[in-house]
Amino acid sequence: MEAVCLQGDRICYASNYQSKPRDGMVEVSVLTAGICETDLQLKKGYMGFQGVLGHEFVGVPLAGRLAGQRVTGEINCACGSCDFCRRGLPRHCTGRSVIGILNHDGAFAETLFVPEENFHPVPADLSTDRAVFTEPVAAACRILEQVRIAANDRVVILGDGRLGNLCAQVLKTTKCSLCVVGKHQSKLDRLAALGVDNTLLADFQAASDADFVVDCTGSASGTELAVQAVRACGTIIQKTTVAGTQDLAMAPFVIDEITLLGSRCGPFAPALELLHTEQVVVDNLISGRYPLQEAEAAFEHAEQGDALKILFDITGE
Amino acid sequence: MEAVCLQGDRICYASNYQSKPRDGMVEVSVLTAGICETDLQLKKGYMGFQGVLGHEFVGVPLAGRLAGQRVTGEINCACGSCDFCRRGLPRHCTGRSVIGILNHDGAFAETLFVPEENFHPVPADLSTDRAVFTEPVAAACRILEQVRIAANDRVVILGDGRLGNLCAQVLKTTKCSLCVVGKHQSKLDRLAALGVDNTLLADFQAASDADFVVDCTGSASGTELAVQAVRACGTIIQKTTVAGTQDLAMAPFVIDEITLLGSRCGPFAPALELLHTEQVVVDNLISGRYPLQEAEAAFEHAEQGDALKILFDITGE
Repeated sequence: MEAVCLQGDRICYASNYQSKPRDGMVEVSVLTAGICETDLQLKKGYMGFQGVLGHEFVGVPLAGRLAGQRVTGEINCACGSCDFCRRGLPRHCTGRSVIGILNHDGAFAETLFVPEENFHPVPADLSTDRAVFTEPVAAACRILEQVRIAANDRVVILGDGRLGNLCAQVLKTTKCSLCVVGKHQSKLDRLAALGVDNTLLADFQAASDADFVVDCTGSASGTELAVQAVRACGTIIQKTTVAGTQDLAMAPFVIDEITLLGSRCGPFAPALELLHTEQVVVDNLISGRYPLQEAEAAFEHAEQGDALKILFDITGE
Repeated sequence: MEAVCLQGDRICYASNYQSKPRDGMVEVSVLTAGICETDLQLKKGYMGFQGVLGHEFVGVPLAGRLAGQRVTGEINCACGSCDFCRRGLPRHCTGRSVIGILNHDGAFAETLFVPEENFHPVPADLSTDRAVFTEPVAAACRILEQVRIAANDRVVILGDGRLGNLCAQVLKTTKCSLCVVGKHQSKLDRLAALGVDNTLLADFQAASDADFVVDCTGSASGTELAVQAVRACGTIIQKTTVAGTQDLAMAPFVIDEITLLGSRCGPFAPALELLHTEQVVVDNLISGRYPLQEAEAAFEHAEQGDALKILFDITGE
């Protein structure tokens, strides 16, 4: 079997991989999987992860209740019995594994093991190429579980990449006054085509007037710019995860009573619904597709500034 | 007239000071004023303030509705017409001056000018020495305007100084499960005498289990320790203001969806009530009292690790 592994800081293709069964989990044959910004960060040492990468996937369970159907799968595998699971926060289970991120071999492989309760069936008329975006769309939906964004609230999204685009489409459903700030004219043009206001970073004047600022920059400098853009008593939603530390002035948080709110994984059901109803449109976000054998080239492509989503085609439908 | 000024990074006593009238404000004869951690930070360059320091005071207005009565005074002087004033957030008025902190000569002087709407009368049976704590107690009360702390919630306060002590006394009124972490056995003993659980920093095991962590350390390292102490989906309340930047890992905020909430000035009415009803007891927090002429010695005393509140006795009652 084939897989793409992270070994040290290198992406390696393995032709002789065998996914290890995990207690109580179901083997899934992976159809398609997407490279995420987090995968690029993992490669730089984030989380210290080693093993098979990949956490955005559509596959077909080989056993169980949904055997033979297309599914997408939540990435946090919870114990069900710790304090956080009992509080209804399984994504924060202290004993969790996270597919392709923490103690769990991921989806850049012919098969992987996933708990059955993590599956969400993909509607028959939603394509695999669209459904593979469920996980990142869910991460964008997480914001709306955490804060109430009202119509006409001023929202600035920093970053025009994969996650910035999806956050923009999800937050646009609130009818807020939205502006995406990015470095890449081609990516901003894609947002403009979806009716999302945007501006080049070089032209952006941070004016301490945004009710919410979402940091999707994927860069350590994002938080500092967010502090300049948010109003007093406003909220910064931190989506970007970066390895290592950064230099940050804390006094503005106190003086202006700014809230900084970390935001990670989100709910799959509303994400699938937004994709299914085409309120979130992803067709023009696919910048390239590769077989697993060409993993190095796929990652090089994903790391290019103008790339959006790179997919692995794994097993045919 | 006498005053204590910050000139560069030096504390200077001036015997020939004349407080400048400010439009629409009332002159107040200062009885007693307290040195705050913020004053020590201003001396280190925070806010770039120069001029007469002091924002914790009890005085007697020389004119107006409350002439001749003892008052304490809110420190943010708002314009009343900007967006923030109209939203009911005058403490964030974009055109504000802040007494002794921003474009406004402060209370370490025989008189200062304060808007009449900032005054709160001191109850006749509340001593001046207690009422001078109203501003820092109000800052502690601000936390309860921002977050809901329930009985039995686990709350850790980092810092056993002036602000940490007052935050502990205010948060104790919620019946939360509270622990103060500090470096000074004598200060922790004072808290123990008030029935507040506490532990030496050297013995503290940050265990990612606190629902709320309040950073009152006055040190740039406070936030990092707070991140280690707070649970997933918990809240760090940032009280400490430190000049300059600090090195901070942002990934834990995202992974554990931690909220960091800046918290500054608070409501005077509940603070006066807590002092008046002796739910907040401050008598054992006064470490020294000085005349304005001995300002340098007063600041040196305030900067000592074991000092709590240092007061200036300014005009006699």
